[in-house]
Amino acid sequence: MVKEFSFKLKNSENKARRGEITTAHGTIQTPAFMPVGTAATVKAIKFRDVKESGAEIILGNTYHLMLRPSAELIGQMGGLHKFMNWDKPILTDSGGFQVMSLSKIRKISDAGVEFSSHIDGTKYFVSPERSIEIQHLLGSDITMIFDECVQFPATYEQAKDAMIRSNLWAQRSKDAFQKRPGYAIFGIMQGSTFADLRQQSAQALINIGFDGYALGGLAVGEGQEEMFKVLDYAPDLLPQDKPRYLMGVGKPSDIVGAVARGVDMFDCVIPTRSGRTGQAFTRNGTINIRNAKYRTDDQPLDDKCGCYGCKNHSRAYLHHLTKCNEILASMLLSEHNIFYYQDLMRDIRQAIEENRFSAFVADFFAIDSESEKDN
Amino acid sequence: MVKEFSFKLKNSENKARRGEITTAHGTIQTPAFMPVGTAATVKAIKFRDVKESGAEIILGNTYHLMLRPSAELIGQMGGLHKFMNWDKPILTDSGGFQVMSLSKIRKISDAGVEFSSHIDGTKYFVSPERSIEIQHLLGSDITMIFDECVQFPATYEQAKDAMIRSNLWAQRSKDAFQKRPGYAIFGIMQGSTFADLRQQSAQALINIGFDGYALGGLAVGEGQEEMFKVLDYAPDLLPQDKPRYLMGVGKPSDIVGAVARGVDMFDCVIPTRSGRTGQAFTRNGTINIRNAKYRTDDQPLDDKCGCYGCKNHSRAYLHHLTKCNEILASMLLSEHNIFYYQDLMRDIRQAIEENRFSAFVADFFAIDSESEKDN
Repeated sequence: MVKEFSFKLKNSENKARRGEITTAHGTIQTPAFMPVGTAATVKAIKFRDVKESGAEIILGNTYHLMLRPSAELIGQMGGLHKFMNWDKPILTDSGGFQVMSLSKIRKISDAGVEFSSHIDGTKYFVSPERSIEIQHLLGSDITMIFDECVQFPATYEQAKDAMIRSNLWAQRSKDAFQKRPGYAIFGIMQGSTFADLRQQSAQALINIGFDGYALGGLAVGEGQEEMFKVLDYAPDLLPQDKPRYLMGVGKPSDIVGAVARGVDMFDCVIPTRSGRTGQAFTRNGTINIRNAKYRTDDQPLDDKCGCYGCKNHSRAYLHHLTKCNEILASMLLSEHNIFYYQDLMRDIRQAIEENRFSAFVADFFAIDSESEKDN
Repeated sequence: MVKEFSFKLKNSENKARRGEITTAHGTIQTPAFMPVGTAATVKAIKFRDVKESGAEIILGNTYHLMLRPSAELIGQMGGLHKFMNWDKPILTDSGGFQVMSLSKIRKISDAGVEFSSHIDGTKYFVSPERSIEIQHLLGSDITMIFDECVQFPATYEQAKDAMIRSNLWAQRSKDAFQKRPGYAIFGIMQGSTFADLRQQSAQALINIGFDGYALGGLAVGEGQEEMFKVLDYAPDLLPQDKPRYLMGVGKPSDIVGAVARGVDMFDCVIPTRSGRTGQAFTRNGTINIRNAKYRTDDQPLDDKCGCYGCKNHSRAYLHHLTKCNEILASMLLSEHNIFYYQDLMRDIRQAIEENRFSAFVADFFAIDSESEKDN
């Protein structure tokens, strides 16, 4: 039997929400962190290990996949799930953010964006309709509308213009979306750090009506304090009965703070990118494994972690691998960080279920601050 | 109970030998291929997967490990087995080959070699005594003597001088070796492509007496035909009741041909290095996965292979990953190639056991030649 896409709120504590999303490819417990599978791979990790970490959904990047190997090829190969052999849910972004940040823009208009690939200069044109078509070819469980994301800082006028265009594109994205049981389309709220623009954006999206709502235009350089100021009110502008997704966030403390402000879903390259540069997240704060003090440290990165690296290798060994730029260092640290993030989300979910999330947040920030002093 | 180092010949067919080596860390079925763990890692593969491939012994590089993290540090951490968490046998080379090929030589004399690190220019001095001390600190099951390996082509005089010095160093290496149950030291025959020098080298080594004998100075650019010419007689110069190890070899066809000529042990970076550049070995010949013809090929690399990549991913997916220079491409192809090599050794062993190795060789070369035409 084909399941309908749905969101069920299981418990809440103050603004923090414990929920469950049902999609065509399975359920997702929220708050959830989605590892980023940019080019049809969560970098340096086998999917078996991504699954073992507890991840129930990963993110695919429309921009990267449309350039290589192309949406049409993935469609021909049976869709992204089959192409990369991941049978759980996939959310795809719309390409909007990367078109703005990575490519050389040729022309942006209400029609869409003409740009050149950052890889080989090939010209592309993406409209809301084309973005939705690509995500359909990929077979994404959760499709994102095509939006225009402004940099930070943006003037009020820039933010307003982009928000208005994004709302037009939101309607066209929804119109282009082919409804099927278990598949969803999410709107994306814009408005930068301007409360009245956030309000207008939210209202326009709600009027169109989406299966879930993302907070866009954050984690673009404004810093945690400024982001939390927006999150103090923005999630409240969105429907209670739909999932809320904070795009591109973030560090563990960003996630904990955002969950406390009512966010349900996250994605970020930080765990894998940090892993490739020697940074590891642990229950006792972040570690830069390149630091000479780990040279003869025979302890695991985190003795409460169940990842392969923590069960099999010492900090001294990881230090050595990192200093030698060995691929195994990237593999073990990336996998560890993905395990850490999934463990964090599990702990967050359990704390909300047991109505002790406020205490969890206080404990978390006590340790997180200490680690910043130490490292 | 501590086991003595031993070699048991189980069967032979013409010159091909089926044996078993016992060491302090376990037994090794021969003919055996040793994946190379240069810097305390078989590049891009977790040790769990190295073990799953069927590898029973890996090789560690004295030269790389003495530079980073240093033999003393590994000794302090409990030896190489513990440092990298590999509980099966380890063979270490003596550093001689890499000192000659990678470092900037400062001075070579009967005393030893003074050289500068290729990484940071630090000066080192390695003598036979120091090489054996390093291998002792690493805790190697099989220690190799420190030798002088000449390039190909070498003049008769160059080859003779290096062979004579290597024999002096062989005696000093043996004298420096600390005998312990289950631990062994192997001599290394030199003499380039000169039969009389090979003969003199073998005799000198036999007079000293070793637990096993390596064929050095091959796979240094002479090509398969020239190498096979040496292997047509050189293994016969060595004792029947000791293992014979052909250093740094090779392609699958090199291995099959060398087994047919009486060699028991091999090591080579080809499977892992090839994996990092998109080359895969299969039962139907070699594949360059970057080739456009694999772009939409939904078959596994090799449908008879049991590696993670072959069980989970298509050639089209591997082609995509390789084109994008994704780390996962290096991981999956390296692991596949190590599985291929171990499967090859298993097939070779079984063929010798069942006295059908001659037919195996004929079949192998029939397919191997076809593949060269195709790729």
